[in-house]
Amino acid sequence: MVSSQSVVEGKLNSLRRWMLEQRVDAYCVPRADEYLGEYLPKYNERLHWLTGFTGSAGMAIVLADKAALFVDGRYTVQVRHQVSEVHFELCHLVESAPAQWLAEMLPAGSRVACDPRMYSLYWYRATQTVLAKTQIDLLGITPNPIDLAWDDRPLVTPAPALLLKEQYSGESSASKRKRVGLQLSEQGADAALLFAPDSVSWILNLRGEDVLCVPVLLSMAILEVDGSLHLLVDADRVPEGFAAHVGDDVFLVAACEAEEFLSAWDGKTVLADPSTANAWSQLTLEAGGALLLAASDPVIEQKACKNPTEILGTRNAHKRDALAVIRFLAWLDRNLRDASAAPLSEALLADRLGALRSELDLFQGPSFDTISAAGVNAAMCHYNHLDNDEAFIERDSVYLVDSGGQYLDGTTDITRTVATGDVGEDVKHLFTLVLKGHIALAQAKFPPGTTGTHLDALARQFLWAEGYDFDHGTGHGVGSFLSVHEGPQRIAKLWNPTALAPGMLLSNEPGYYRDGAFGIRCENLLLVQSVEKEDQEVPMLEFDPVTFVPFDRRLLVVDLLSESERAWIDAYHQRILSELDLDLLSPDDFAWLKEATQPL
Amino acid sequence: MVSSQSVVEGKLNSLRRWMLEQRVDAYCVPRADEYLGEYLPKYNERLHWLTGFTGSAGMAIVLADKAALFVDGRYTVQVRHQVSEVHFELCHLVESAPAQWLAEMLPAGSRVACDPRMYSLYWYRATQTVLAKTQIDLLGITPNPIDLAWDDRPLVTPAPALLLKEQYSGESSASKRKRVGLQLSEQGADAALLFAPDSVSWILNLRGEDVLCVPVLLSMAILEVDGSLHLLVDADRVPEGFAAHVGDDVFLVAACEAEEFLSAWDGKTVLADPSTANAWSQLTLEAGGALLLAASDPVIEQKACKNPTEILGTRNAHKRDALAVIRFLAWLDRNLRDASAAPLSEALLADRLGALRSELDLFQGPSFDTISAAGVNAAMCHYNHLDNDEAFIERDSVYLVDSGGQYLDGTTDITRTVATGDVGEDVKHLFTLVLKGHIALAQAKFPPGTTGTHLDALARQFLWAEGYDFDHGTGHGVGSFLSVHEGPQRIAKLWNPTALAPGMLLSNEPGYYRDGAFGIRCENLLLVQSVEKEDQEVPMLEFDPVTFVPFDRRLLVVDLLSESERAWIDAYHQRILSELDLDLLSPDDFAWLKEATQPL
Repeated sequence: MVSSQSVVEGKLNSLRRWMLEQRVDAYCVPRADEYLGEYLPKYNERLHWLTGFTGSAGMAIVLADKAALFVDGRYTVQVRHQVSEVHFELCHLVESAPAQWLAEMLPAGSRVACDPRMYSLYWYRATQTVLAKTQIDLLGITPNPIDLAWDDRPLVTPAPALLLKEQYSGESSASKRKRVGLQLSEQGADAALLFAPDSVSWILNLRGEDVLCVPVLLSMAILEVDGSLHLLVDADRVPEGFAAHVGDDVFLVAACEAEEFLSAWDGKTVLADPSTANAWSQLTLEAGGALLLAASDPVIEQKACKNPTEILGTRNAHKRDALAVIRFLAWLDRNLRDASAAPLSEALLADRLGALRSELDLFQGPSFDTISAAGVNAAMCHYNHLDNDEAFIERDSVYLVDSGGQYLDGTTDITRTVATGDVGEDVKHLFTLVLKGHIALAQAKFPPGTTGTHLDALARQFLWAEGYDFDHGTGHGVGSFLSVHEGPQRIAKLWNPTALAPGMLLSNEPGYYRDGAFGIRCENLLLVQSVEKEDQEVPMLEFDPVTFVPFDRRLLVVDLLSESERAWIDAYHQRILSELDLDLLSPDDFAWLKEATQPL
Repeated sequence: MVSSQSVVEGKLNSLRRWMLEQRVDAYCVPRADEYLGEYLPKYNERLHWLTGFTGSAGMAIVLADKAALFVDGRYTVQVRHQVSEVHFELCHLVESAPAQWLAEMLPAGSRVACDPRMYSLYWYRATQTVLAKTQIDLLGITPNPIDLAWDDRPLVTPAPALLLKEQYSGESSASKRKRVGLQLSEQGADAALLFAPDSVSWILNLRGEDVLCVPVLLSMAILEVDGSLHLLVDADRVPEGFAAHVGDDVFLVAACEAEEFLSAWDGKTVLADPSTANAWSQLTLEAGGALLLAASDPVIEQKACKNPTEILGTRNAHKRDALAVIRFLAWLDRNLRDASAAPLSEALLADRLGALRSELDLFQGPSFDTISAAGVNAAMCHYNHLDNDEAFIERDSVYLVDSGGQYLDGTTDITRTVATGDVGEDVKHLFTLVLKGHIALAQAKFPPGTTGTHLDALARQFLWAEGYDFDHGTGHGVGSFLSVHEGPQRIAKLWNPTALAPGMLLSNEPGYYRDGAFGIRCENLLLVQSVEKEDQEVPMLEFDPVTFVPFDRRLLVVDLLSESERAWIDAYHQRILSELDLDLLSPDDFAWLKEATQPL
């Protein structure tokens, strides 16, 4: 829905008045806040306020007499529904596009302003370099002019942080801080800027409710080599018992003291990741005399390898989560069989699945916005029914549902594609090719040193053999009651140098999308573990699935499966029956599950 | 065989006298000459002269009172046979080991010397940086002290270059030079240092006999954006008709003028690859005022994608080459069956195969040193029978032969592993796993943008599944009557960013090596080509084999093969019969081939 034109006009005018006062010729508004994360709290959705665009990535640039909105290929259709082309030229977002557009639009000597808290240092310096070629200056200015003009800005209503018990985290904060501090000293740093809120939350065994789907406390921290930590968060954000929970040597720095605090590291070497940490924090450290050591966040690799407590929690969370998904799929099938049932909308289905999850023990919320996509809509792999007209399940097609939950003991993410009737041979053929790829990856064994990029082709080979492919990664890392997308490991074509290691949790989600027709995706989460086998010449790693929900047997062309693939599917389906607590299912749901897990 | 101790002593003494005169505390002698290639002419084997070591990589460092020889894992056994530990401490060669050893051995203020023509600029600068940490200087000094002391140095007997006809090259030098020149101007360079002799030979359609196995003219060149080229080679190296052959705007620069010539690029931007071009050439350019642009040799990517003439030539060369290998394998089988035959030594077999190749049309020489390895010796993947005691074929084992030829129309490289009797189930099982990997890679289809690293796991997956692996790359690029190892493409675990593209030629050579027992390798060369299929959603590439010699059916466990793998082997064997000119085989050899290509 396009925002009222006069409203947009008013917002642009107020921004332009500020630009005049500041004597700047352009102002950039990205879809980001100072934490540069995927999910933003509503009160930080500045790009949406200015433009009406709800996508997860984009940037507006406002000049005195025109404005542009840059969005990537995922959002080219959606942006036309949401944004008026009267006010914004719509442009394609690739890394350097905004800077190049500015260089074309503005004469030499122009001044471009931005809020340096909303960009990585990497982006900030690269953009400065591009603009300098045409004698244009990039200036970092705070406070943010959107904040000054945003009258009805939602209130910041921060709930206090949650203290995550060691029965879920498996290691005390003091122990984690010592461990990472030791690693820092080996890297030659005196301290590290822990910029990602999930790194901070992990190392302090804290969680929060500041943003949807990612249970972090929005904060950053500086960790010293001795394990002491300075948490940049206001004291009212931490609950009673905080000091006892996190242990000694954790100090709070209030927001109003942050700049002064970051300016006080003169002569110290501070590790920070210029591609993920915001420009402001690093420029402030540098201005105060700190030496920046560019390296990746030292917490990320530690966090990626789950400890035994987290592994057990992840397995338990997935077993409970599977019950909700099975109940949902059984309910859906019963409704599809009932000719008198009311039409099933995508939203109704997403809500039903959400409600079933919310009944589960330790449930804290969804781990991302559910993708509930009927028929043709499933061909858009980042579809969100909330951004589109109400759509109903199509009969004789496929329905794709990609969803997950946050639990105190783990984070889940699962996609199933189900038949809504007689789908025809073409859809079955492609579903089978996708599932063959899923199985090849799930069955892979590989030596230490192997990265996700080495394994990516295993999941694509059967599609490739027939001239098909899918345009997204095959697998992403998943946190432990943290972000459903976490690094550093990844399974994708793009080179990722991180070797897969025991304790890493990854998705396995090959798919196939036919524009204007249908979409397919088969996703389980997998844990990396060592192969326990005597007399092996080379140590090997393997995946163990933690997701236990049947794949839709009605979509399989059994003749296309090798014996080993058939055996894998049958064994996986049998394992569902042995892993889950079947007593918790109603007789109807249990009957559905028995049917759905019959051998092929 | 260890060189006589007094001889080594004398050589070290003369080097140490020179070091005293030059007031340097250490001198480095690498296994390299100024072209930094894999094969060296005998008169440039300076490391061998000094130490007796014949391996293809290594470095000696001589101090006033001690010396060390660094070799990598391939040569740890061999070096003990060849080099006296009285004179040289034997050390493990990894990139920074020599510099670290120097830093430990020498006090601050020491001076280390080397000949800057024998090292890449990358090595030279990295070593300077390491040594500078302990206040040690690295000095580049010419002339080379080995050359001054080497009394019985083999004479330089350069044959004149060969002018490769367009019926083999498929494109005139003028056209190639214009094309690469255009690319240079897009990169913002005024000129490029073509440092690799195979790049120079390719762009001028020249070949040479300066080194064994790689038919290049040892030379370097500077190419300008307009396509004009300065060839650094003495005039007596080019034959009559050279000027007409290479076309206009090719100028000769004699060796004695090279330094002056490289010093005359003041203010010009000259592209050079610091990891492959020698330090001396780039330091000389820089000292003369040239701006160095570090980038990879612009010829390498052009050369990698064979043109239609080269593709046809490669196919023809392989069809002829296959006849020699088939005659060899048939002869070997007849000899193995004949209980009264004389024992078969590795050397005898290698010579027999070489003799059979030398009878073929357009044959110019071997493309590398034949690996003829019986039984346990095949477990060493870089085995050379010439470096070892005479060994004979073992019965009831496997024999591995990896060999290739240079022909005017192409370069071949093939490995076959053959049974010498009843090998037992274990060897058959592993041979089958290796061949399954070979087939998976050979059958792969993949979209443009796919690199060799993406496909490497396809060849290893069956070994990995049972806890095995092999410790070398799966495939290397191959030239067109040029080096049998050429880049930029490669199929290996180590990340290689080069996308496979139509016209590239690569080996497919998975293997398995059991220390002290046996070795297996199955190698064909493959051409990358587009999949010709209507209605494909995504364009796809595939491999087409150019090698046509049977794999040993007696080594297969047929039950381990999928239907598709059996069909691939049978179709490949049938294709041998249809591709080759069978009339050229003797009745005995033809009968052997019919038997060897029977369906499974």
